[in-house]
Amino acid sequence: MSESTYIVTGMTCGHCVSSVTEEIGEINGVQDVQVDLSTGNVTVTSDRELTHEEIRSAVTEAGYQLAS
Amino acid sequence: MSESTYIVTGMTCGHCVSSVTEEIGEINGVQDVQVDLSTGNVTVTSDRELTHEEIRSAVTEAGYQLAS
Repeated sequence: MSESTYIVTGMTCGHCVSSVTEEIGEINGVQDVQVDLSTGNVTVTSDRELTHEEIRSAVTEAGYQLAS
Repeated sequence: MSESTYIVTGMTCGHCVSSVTEEIGEINGVQDVQVDLSTGNVTVTSDRELTHEEIRSAVTEAGYQLAS
């Protein structure tokens, strides 16, 4: 089990949170996604190591930006 | 044909605009809904006079507030 936290910018409301949660949740191996809208912190739990690029791609697909 | 502009508060992103547009668009007689996210102005075109209460109800249903 692996847990990593990322910072996503541009989310402004619950719909944004839903979009990001949904896109990241579709990555193979992801078991849980927790988003804190006020900080932009997105914590992803998965059963394998995810690459930064996989996360970045999902966040971009949802219409937001990975901060780093 | 009737056109009225309302101010809706609480919209922060395109998803919010979609929600408000969709709910107001479901009111009987509504033909067009234009939302300006930056000002909160919502312009509704309809083939009959709409009551303030009809608009308020749709905006509330979408999860936002009618300013006046």
